[in-house]
Amino acid sequence: MTECGHRIPLLAWRCRLRKAKEQTGNTNAKLKIIPIGGLGLIGMNMTAFEYNNSIVVVDCGLAFPEDDMLGIDLVIPDVTYLKDNIEKVKGIVFTHGHEDHIGALPYILKEMNVPLYATKLTMGLIERKLTEHNLMRSTKRKVVRPGQSINLGEFRVEFIKTNHSIADAVALAIYSPAGIVIHTGDFKVDYTPVFGDSIDLQRFAELGKKGVLALMCDSTNAERPGFTASERTVGKTFDNLFAENANRRIIIATFASNVDRVQQIINSAYKYGRKVLVEGRSMVNIIQTASELGYLDIPQNTLIDLEQMKNYPDEQMVLITTGSQGESMAALSRMAANMHKKVTIKPGDTVIFSSNPIPGNEKAVSKVINELSMKGANVIFEHVHTSGHACQEEIKLIYSLVRPKYAIPVHGEYRHMKAQARLVEELGIDKDRIFMLNTGDVLELDKDSARVTGHVPTGSILVDGLGVGDVGNIVLRDRQYLAEDGIVIAVLTLERYTGQVLSGPDIVSRGFVYVREAVDLMDEARGVVEETMDYCNAHRVTDWAKIKNSIRDSLGDFLWKRTKRRPMILPIIMEVE
Amino acid sequence: MTECGHRIPLLAWRCRLRKAKEQTGNTNAKLKIIPIGGLGLIGMNMTAFEYNNSIVVVDCGLAFPEDDMLGIDLVIPDVTYLKDNIEKVKGIVFTHGHEDHIGALPYILKEMNVPLYATKLTMGLIERKLTEHNLMRSTKRKVVRPGQSINLGEFRVEFIKTNHSIADAVALAIYSPAGIVIHTGDFKVDYTPVFGDSIDLQRFAELGKKGVLALMCDSTNAERPGFTASERTVGKTFDNLFAENANRRIIIATFASNVDRVQQIINSAYKYGRKVLVEGRSMVNIIQTASELGYLDIPQNTLIDLEQMKNYPDEQMVLITTGSQGESMAALSRMAANMHKKVTIKPGDTVIFSSNPIPGNEKAVSKVINELSMKGANVIFEHVHTSGHACQEEIKLIYSLVRPKYAIPVHGEYRHMKAQARLVEELGIDKDRIFMLNTGDVLELDKDSARVTGHVPTGSILVDGLGVGDVGNIVLRDRQYLAEDGIVIAVLTLERYTGQVLSGPDIVSRGFVYVREAVDLMDEARGVVEETMDYCNAHRVTDWAKIKNSIRDSLGDFLWKRTKRRPMILPIIMEVE
Repeated sequence: MTECGHRIPLLAWRCRLRKAKEQTGNTNAKLKIIPIGGLGLIGMNMTAFEYNNSIVVVDCGLAFPEDDMLGIDLVIPDVTYLKDNIEKVKGIVFTHGHEDHIGALPYILKEMNVPLYATKLTMGLIERKLTEHNLMRSTKRKVVRPGQSINLGEFRVEFIKTNHSIADAVALAIYSPAGIVIHTGDFKVDYTPVFGDSIDLQRFAELGKKGVLALMCDSTNAERPGFTASERTVGKTFDNLFAENANRRIIIATFASNVDRVQQIINSAYKYGRKVLVEGRSMVNIIQTASELGYLDIPQNTLIDLEQMKNYPDEQMVLITTGSQGESMAALSRMAANMHKKVTIKPGDTVIFSSNPIPGNEKAVSKVINELSMKGANVIFEHVHTSGHACQEEIKLIYSLVRPKYAIPVHGEYRHMKAQARLVEELGIDKDRIFMLNTGDVLELDKDSARVTGHVPTGSILVDGLGVGDVGNIVLRDRQYLAEDGIVIAVLTLERYTGQVLSGPDIVSRGFVYVREAVDLMDEARGVVEETMDYCNAHRVTDWAKIKNSIRDSLGDFLWKRTKRRPMILPIIMEVE
Repeated sequence: MTECGHRIPLLAWRCRLRKAKEQTGNTNAKLKIIPIGGLGLIGMNMTAFEYNNSIVVVDCGLAFPEDDMLGIDLVIPDVTYLKDNIEKVKGIVFTHGHEDHIGALPYILKEMNVPLYATKLTMGLIERKLTEHNLMRSTKRKVVRPGQSINLGEFRVEFIKTNHSIADAVALAIYSPAGIVIHTGDFKVDYTPVFGDSIDLQRFAELGKKGVLALMCDSTNAERPGFTASERTVGKTFDNLFAENANRRIIIATFASNVDRVQQIINSAYKYGRKVLVEGRSMVNIIQTASELGYLDIPQNTLIDLEQMKNYPDEQMVLITTGSQGESMAALSRMAANMHKKVTIKPGDTVIFSSNPIPGNEKAVSKVINELSMKGANVIFEHVHTSGHACQEEIKLIYSLVRPKYAIPVHGEYRHMKAQARLVEELGIDKDRIFMLNTGDVLELDKDSARVTGHVPTGSILVDGLGVGDVGNIVLRDRQYLAEDGIVIAVLTLERYTGQVLSGPDIVSRGFVYVREAVDLMDEARGVVEETMDYCNAHRVTDWAKIKNSIRDSLGDFLWKRTKRRPMILPIIMEVE
């Protein structure tokens, strides 16, 4: 029973809305859409929807570090704007359980405690994280079903079934007094999904008929023509590969979170009388969660563990493993590098990459393929995968069902969002009704108009070990500098009042040059620092900062001339009475 | 006139051979094939052919550093084996002028001065390098034409016309008393090349009829079915793109060395009445060399320089630029990042990537595409390129013409060579006649047998600035360590005889944590070192190495516990009397 006395959510929501309007006196507010993280950057998906005194947040993802973020483990969005408006924030709703949509949650929850709403599998994966970070007790959570709606302040959010490379993905219809916004999340159109229903195209059409203010649609594959193939096609490929490789051990690497893919491997294994081993921590975890929640159907006596491996001949086994992206510490990479404790690649093994390299991972994947080939494995890496994202025809389909007034491409790099913008123009939506938003942009819209009216502070916060946000640009620049040519330290001890050199200068270097081969260079470097000190003495330079600068300049120049390298120069002065 | 009195090379060679055999008394020597660099590693192509007292070297390439070779500029092969047998080395013959086939030359020539043999354009590019390194006067060089043969000790080497993504590429037929080996170099079959003749398939067939001992064939595209499209197809695409983008400025990025590609851009520009600007140092250099040598035909008044750019409207210009691989310092990348002094990307510009990303460069290329898109440029990056390497059908064609006794896949990563091996097996060559060689392997062969009989020392030498080989594994490991979590230095001054701490410990860090935010941590760290010193004093530890180890352990443990990071710990002890 709600405060208005209604049992039916929609009515209750309308009633609550009326009350809210009476209270705020603002009956013509506009809806604000604010990307908090990640638009244009892969990962870190997080978007705020604001209407009057209500904010609803969609997703809370992390990003993996760029190549120049040396030593960084992961990147999370800066939620300053949400923290500053915490009394408005009604909760976070989730589209699906991939890391770039749920991964920042443990860090963000420590900053702002708000309720979470997600479908069953998504919530299962979230709860795994909360348990790890000891956040289960303090966090309000609600599991929702596709088709269900929830009221969050002046918003109502409806969860609409979609298909993606992880089960239980949903699109969101976000109802506000200014109109309905549909956010697709990551999605594809799969008419023959492996688990559960096909995407609820009828509901998209129905909402389209009602009138949709804006569509925020996945752009990841917007450069690719045609349709993405059904997940089920991969199952047929597995059957063929199992038949062709009947006499070999089969090892299959795929994304741990692709539960349907794992299901299809298990199906083929069962059909061809093979036992299934699972290797790699994240794979074991997700399979456990997915089977507990009923998203995975494993026939009895099919799973075995590594200890039992020796009891079965090669041709009666299939290993499902992590490492499809060439991640150096993942199980398959360790097998390929002969560093896995229990699995050794043998000539005759068939290794299947059921994945495509994510951009940036091509070289790492190729390295693993090379290593596996050198060990005599038969490596299969083409046509054993299908994407989880909509291609051009699917994007056009969704737009044609929803017929939104405004288009806001989301997900993917800028080039992909731009590609969607071009597609949408072809469908006849005017250029000025298509919005390419940047992180932090405040898009204010209602049925009469839409424009970017401001910008809120956003950014990326780097996580390194236990440190959240304690590594910034200065530290990163130093790491890059150190990585390039190492460090040369000039250390000396001075007498406090006279400034006389009591000890040193000593030259210590790391990552600069193999010192045993460069004794002369180091001797000369010491000479350069001695000369600099003599010069400072002669000119009565006693300010340490100036002395250090002189050493930095003279030693840097000397080393550049001699080696054409620019190591970091670090002068250290000690003082003794 | 030769020493034998013959004018005809083949006869002279036979005569010389007979003499050589009389001298060595070894009439049944086997041919040795020894990959000196790069088999299985991209780049660094260099192979030695040895028969009795003669060694002929094919190519002398560099490799670009792998991701974990921090700060390294380039990698060259270790030629110890050749230096140890320098009296046998008759010269280096080149297949074409790409960096991975000629780039190590300036460094290697400083180690061993031997004559060079190459076709005209290849030699032109080599001479540019020799001039830069002041090696022109000291190096014997001979320009050869395709179809020509030269005698080198007991070898004769014939240069056979091929097609590739750089003009003047050749395959080599290497004649030895043990038989003929054909080395294709990098090649494709282009029936309609832009410049010069098609690959000399007849000669491959003719040699095949005579009997070829071994074929060393390019594997780069051995995983790709079908045929590589003719370079000329790209010209048609340019014509279409020039027609479609008649009202826009056009900027085209491609490989500097692809002279035929540049020619086709110039052809389209001329046809559509556009002036051509060239931007990027390597592009300017190669265009200059190629036009001087007659490999590029530029109509008068077509080339303009950047200063003249302002005199022409956008739609009358095309810029040809470097940066097709997203290299951060290349011209296009600088334009995209708003860092180019003279060219600013404008909305409406059409930017064409006439290239595919080389594996490992995908992310960098994508970054540039994103930046260009954000500036409003129309970016075209698909179907404006064709490979320079033979696909599966071409590889099968060459094998079917040459019908070698032994197959030795070369060029490309291990997976590609393996793919060729599989193709070759399908053609009916027995597995035991296919050799997957590793760098340093000595393959001894004649018509009766072939097997790997030994291994010579080989390896990769890292070039960093002026230093050749002075950065080894220790330095690289330190750079990786520094890149990951930075460095923490603990420095203190001790009294010589008492071991009493006179100054410090001071804690200095770089690349570890933003220190102003971590004052407490640094204070505690100092405390940890003080405690360690107290402990050492109490236990009368006076050995500096032991003291340093104690500091390293205690400080490292402390920082790991507090931050879950492992910076390099560097204790420095100074001593004062």
